[in-house]
Amino acid sequence: MRYPRDIESIIELLTTLPGVGRRGAERMVFALLRWNPDKLKVFGALVGGLPDTVRKCVQCGNITDAELCVVCANSSRDASIICVVEEATQIPTIEKSSLFKGLYHVLGGRLSPLDGKGAEDLSIDHLLHRLADPAHPVREIILALSPDVEGRATAIYLADLLKEHVALVSTLAQGIPAGADITFANSATIAAAFSGRTSLSSPPPQR
Amino acid sequence: MRYPRDIESIIELLTTLPGVGRRGAERMVFALLRWNPDKLKVFGALVGGLPDTVRKCVQCGNITDAELCVVCANSSRDASIICVVEEATQIPTIEKSSLFKGLYHVLGGRLSPLDGKGAEDLSIDHLLHRLADPAHPVREIILALSPDVEGRATAIYLADLLKEHVALVSTLAQGIPAGADITFANSATIAAAFSGRTSLSSPPPQR
Repeated sequence: MRYPRDIESIIELLTTLPGVGRRGAERMVFALLRWNPDKLKVFGALVGGLPDTVRKCVQCGNITDAELCVVCANSSRDASIICVVEEATQIPTIEKSSLFKGLYHVLGGRLSPLDGKGAEDLSIDHLLHRLADPAHPVREIILALSPDVEGRATAIYLADLLKEHVALVSTLAQGIPAGADITFANSATIAAAFSGRTSLSSPPPQR
Repeated sequence: MRYPRDIESIIELLTTLPGVGRRGAERMVFALLRWNPDKLKVFGALVGGLPDTVRKCVQCGNITDAELCVVCANSSRDASIICVVEEATQIPTIEKSSLFKGLYHVLGGRLSPLDGKGAEDLSIDHLLHRLADPAHPVREIILALSPDVEGRATAIYLADLLKEHVALVSTLAQGIPAGADITFANSATIAAAFSGRTSLSSPPPQR
């Protein structure tokens, strides 16, 4: 059955979202059709207004509706540690663990020669600029890049570049995810978990 | 982490859609943030404009952007059979099977005394009005209502009401869904499948 044109357009747009197939998009549109008109208009205006209301934090590149994002604007955060992520969308995942108390820096991607993405396309100059600020000395950069080929290559490139500007450049541990069954871990994860194994019988080395 | 206010609002609205949890809504918003501004504005305008562009077919109550829906406007459909559904959102499912060639009638719900929904809240008068049209005699009404308590009650009520106006009032067969494993069918389905069993050794009765 052909839907009215606008509904068909909405379904097609929804299917470009992650995890939304044709049937899921249809169910969503039917749910939208049951919303009252005011709710629909508010939702439409919010989504259509995203390009105008949401911008990048001038310091770290996180999404924000002010000049600084909620992380950078929080004076209780430790400005001496910067966690480098590929995309702003990865910050909420890290924030949810409540463990990291430093600031972030959004690269805007990673080195990907096949996609024509080089170092000049990433927010590296801005990161070096932040490190050069004498008012906020940085003692550690944590590279939280994806543990795949391009992410590793980007991390190695950055570590080489940054080691002259900061005392410690670290990267996230690789291993078995918490709560996962070892049966289903892939070989690269098993290899990383073995080579990064930690001692249970003696106290961990002091860093 | 708190998101910018507008993003938080969009996430909350998205979680009211079927099958969308908090994390799914977050992923969707992040995907929306990667859309280009024009695409976002088009999507926002389409969704916000739904109340103005989408209306009910004056004949059957199906969703449409014209006076008649695509089914009612199709002169090759058999106007002598009307399939009664609870919601317009069930029509595409039936249409996909390409088996039913008649017209539809959307009740707008079903009898549900606990929710305060009575016969006067359903599009029953309009259905009787359609049956009374001498230019388009109707020979069969198929009640395609949900096979649960309220759907059955509505079907019995309608069958009693309609039997004076139409030669045949039928309802959809209940049984094991195609492709399903009998192991996982519930008792009511098994009971319906046994009592409605069909002969494989003799030709089916002529209707």
